[in-house]
Amino acid sequence: MLRDPSVKYRPFPQVDLPDRQWPSRTITQPPRWLSTDLRDGNQALIDPMDAEKKTRMFDLLVKVGVKEIEVGFPSAGAVEFDFISGLVKTGRIPDDVIVQVLTQSRRDLIETSFESLRGAPRAIVHLYNAVSPAWRKIVFGMTRDEIKQIAVDGVKVLRDQAAAQPGTDWLFEYSPETFSTAELDFSVEVCEAVMDVLQPTPDRPLILNLPATVEAATPNIYADQIEWFCKHIRNRESVVISLHPHNDRGTGVAAAELGLMAGGDRVEGCLLGNGERTGNCDLVTVALNMYTQGLSPGLDFSDIDEIVNTVQYCTQLPVHPRTPYAGELVFTAFSGSHQDAIKKGFAAQEARNDELWEVPYLPIDPADLGRSYEAVIRVNSQSGKGGVAWVIEQDKGLKLPKRLQADFSRHVQALADETSRELNAADIWGRFEDTYLAKPADRFALGAYDETRAPNGERLFVGDIETGGEHHSVSGRGNGLISSVVAAIDDAFAVKLEVADYVEHAIGKGSDVRAAAYVECRTSDGRTVWGVGIDEDIATASVRAVLSAANRA
Amino acid sequence: MLRDPSVKYRPFPQVDLPDRQWPSRTITQPPRWLSTDLRDGNQALIDPMDAEKKTRMFDLLVKVGVKEIEVGFPSAGAVEFDFISGLVKTGRIPDDVIVQVLTQSRRDLIETSFESLRGAPRAIVHLYNAVSPAWRKIVFGMTRDEIKQIAVDGVKVLRDQAAAQPGTDWLFEYSPETFSTAELDFSVEVCEAVMDVLQPTPDRPLILNLPATVEAATPNIYADQIEWFCKHIRNRESVVISLHPHNDRGTGVAAAELGLMAGGDRVEGCLLGNGERTGNCDLVTVALNMYTQGLSPGLDFSDIDEIVNTVQYCTQLPVHPRTPYAGELVFTAFSGSHQDAIKKGFAAQEARNDELWEVPYLPIDPADLGRSYEAVIRVNSQSGKGGVAWVIEQDKGLKLPKRLQADFSRHVQALADETSRELNAADIWGRFEDTYLAKPADRFALGAYDETRAPNGERLFVGDIETGGEHHSVSGRGNGLISSVVAAIDDAFAVKLEVADYVEHAIGKGSDVRAAAYVECRTSDGRTVWGVGIDEDIATASVRAVLSAANRA
Repeated sequence: MLRDPSVKYRPFPQVDLPDRQWPSRTITQPPRWLSTDLRDGNQALIDPMDAEKKTRMFDLLVKVGVKEIEVGFPSAGAVEFDFISGLVKTGRIPDDVIVQVLTQSRRDLIETSFESLRGAPRAIVHLYNAVSPAWRKIVFGMTRDEIKQIAVDGVKVLRDQAAAQPGTDWLFEYSPETFSTAELDFSVEVCEAVMDVLQPTPDRPLILNLPATVEAATPNIYADQIEWFCKHIRNRESVVISLHPHNDRGTGVAAAELGLMAGGDRVEGCLLGNGERTGNCDLVTVALNMYTQGLSPGLDFSDIDEIVNTVQYCTQLPVHPRTPYAGELVFTAFSGSHQDAIKKGFAAQEARNDELWEVPYLPIDPADLGRSYEAVIRVNSQSGKGGVAWVIEQDKGLKLPKRLQADFSRHVQALADETSRELNAADIWGRFEDTYLAKPADRFALGAYDETRAPNGERLFVGDIETGGEHHSVSGRGNGLISSVVAAIDDAFAVKLEVADYVEHAIGKGSDVRAAAYVECRTSDGRTVWGVGIDEDIATASVRAVLSAANRA
Repeated sequence: MLRDPSVKYRPFPQVDLPDRQWPSRTITQPPRWLSTDLRDGNQALIDPMDAEKKTRMFDLLVKVGVKEIEVGFPSAGAVEFDFISGLVKTGRIPDDVIVQVLTQSRRDLIETSFESLRGAPRAIVHLYNAVSPAWRKIVFGMTRDEIKQIAVDGVKVLRDQAAAQPGTDWLFEYSPETFSTAELDFSVEVCEAVMDVLQPTPDRPLILNLPATVEAATPNIYADQIEWFCKHIRNRESVVISLHPHNDRGTGVAAAELGLMAGGDRVEGCLLGNGERTGNCDLVTVALNMYTQGLSPGLDFSDIDEIVNTVQYCTQLPVHPRTPYAGELVFTAFSGSHQDAIKKGFAAQEARNDELWEVPYLPIDPADLGRSYEAVIRVNSQSGKGGVAWVIEQDKGLKLPKRLQADFSRHVQALADETSRELNAADIWGRFEDTYLAKPADRFALGAYDETRAPNGERLFVGDIETGGEHHSVSGRGNGLISSVVAAIDDAFAVKLEVADYVEHAIGKGSDVRAAAYVECRTSDGRTVWGVGIDEDIATASVRAVLSAANRA
């Protein structure tokens, strides 16, 4: 049994925020996006990216439209330094993209960081130190003042290094690391001390990044913290409030969203939620959540599969099939009622004139992400007639009448129960052929036939029907082709059918067009049997449909 | 490029909730938990579970302590019906566990559902129909009144079927499906019409399950909807408010948490977030989030790996390495600063007397979930000396002095950069042996030796040292063993060392105990070299350490 947690863990304290505003707000403009795939993401990998993978990730981020990219931790080692320095030197950074590097607050590390960016037209240097009580006590053994001094000393070096390299337009970011588990007043105090050194202005603001280094409370608490901070920080207009949620409690995306409502201007995260431990907040999800609310996020995920593939290649980690927007299964319906509703939604969408997306169970048009509709409906033992009919229609162009759908779904259900696995289009088509199109042993197959029209309008069917290896010449009369075939079968083989319904449609277009005929018959003992016929010729398709019904009578 | 979403998507409307309470609340007691792994989870699988897998899942849920288990959709097919009926008949359901089945609102399906439960002492029959405008319009083509009538007609059958099978204690659940995208007043209207039929009381309440069938807004909106509903539903004390979030926007866990703050009594979800599309909300995460706040969730995840393994087996879907609490990587630190902080946290934890868990970067004690600490720190090119030292200590029992950690970390960093992959304990130990313990060609290996103590207290070292295939008899004097060995090496091979520091400790316990000696020396050209010796004998370990240093001088 899990032990009693009350001896080991404590509830996270609430924030004193009497005039809380964020729950009444919505997100009305996209934030600035900072990708930390190459830093927070990379440092959390079993096998960190080599230079080739880093370059591919960088190019992907540029293609997606991320304008601020944290490219690494230059003082962490030669691989990091060389990649960053190489990016700058090779001119791979587009004019509208700014790179950012992270450094701890130590003179030698800061100097190395500036050195890695030598020659860049613009860059952000991001300095951090942890400020929470647990870190102060356990990791550093320092007082609040000593911790604040680390930050102040660091940003002084930032300021001086920047002055020494005037060829680059230097911007700064400061993170009070472990912000979400620190005293809010102390975070404000440290950030204001940093501002005293760097003297940000509304034109040249300082980025203050407020990390949920480890997610430690419900996401509303993070929003409270952001709102509290925004309310209390001096010169709010001279700072950019940046959010950096992690996902230890599975609510990193929610923390980003509620944090934006609470005043955040910028979101740091990784594509598809890579990052330390449970990951950083997933930039794809946060951005596409805005997109599905009609708000353009400024990022382009119209080829989601390319993003999935590149991220998987660079991180050597899988993207889970249920990852929002990007997973293999997130637009897939297996259940019958879901499939029926989606089919109706697509039909209604086609019939309507406006562009508004309104398809049940699909919060986004898969086509917007470059996904086809094909994967939307898949068939297993939980599926109903609607899904099966959809697959047959998508795959073979057959538009099964509703009662035939019901008839056939029983056969598919039996097949699904037998195999106890997902059925693919070939499985379903195979069962359809076996059921309606194949000739069972000892039953009827159509040979040559003639159909003539008598002067009184009656039809005469004369044909060759093979059964059990023998050929029979048969003939019958009726007021139409179908009734004449029914009469011929009754006459020759004593199989009595009464036609209850009949539907025919074209499959395909142009010279490849064929006809599909569906006939619903009642047998003499009151059963309903369906027949299906497919042929280049519409008349022959009908004849085949009747024989198909007779075979099942 | 992603097209302009404003033509296709609309912002989700806000809820009119002027006196909103939930943002000031916290979760102070665990909800009732309903697992829908065997229903919502199962119907979303590529290959739905067969009877054996269903049984294993059921047994796991019982073991975890889930008391309400939705076992399927009995009218969906023979496999479903037979499994449910079999569960009841074989007496596999513990007395304190109640099973639940789902049915659409049609007489024949409801009758089949009751039939599947024949003989159960207690059971919940769960009826649903979709109520939102999109579903009314697109899927059903019905008015509000017609939709309400479907619910009313269904629960009348429920009531009558229950009366006809008085041997079972029947409980009921009603879901206005698509609640989160429906008009709140209409959901209340339908639910109250259902209550009119079923007449719940505080002693026999009706479960009203309010699904975010498709997650369509930020999670605060779901909380607003729950609070609004709780405020307006008649006879609040006669209903149990059940939450059923999905995860289309990646905020299903947040929706469950904020929904509980807003008045929810019960949470429906799946282990590790299986379920339609992006999944149901993850019960493991929601429950363990409570646990880490000192609140016992009433569910037992103390063997998280068993849960991961069984869920993976039953669903045939992977559990992602970054899944909160359960993923392979969620307690792992690769980065040097994280590793250092964690090491200090464990040390502080040991030193303190209270049980309160306070380790940087680890929001939960991995041991609470049956995870060992071994996986916590893993080494790659992002790692620092702290992580390497931890691995060596965990694996070999060597407690490297701090400056030796720094010395060795350079060798590990080089290895990581060379290989550009994660280093395992064997890699690290291999490099440690090569660096400090192996005898390089043409350097020194210890043969037999004697150590005597002169009457004046001086030590005399006389021994055999092999180098380049030749054996040398060497001797030296000093005021201790180490200085006598240093003197002998100087005398025989002109290698001058000055000992700057010396540490020795035992490895292991009892008859297997060995000694590790570390010696830090200055060479004649001012370099620092470390030597390491390991031996059963503490004196010999010291001699080996000095030779190790000499080999590196």
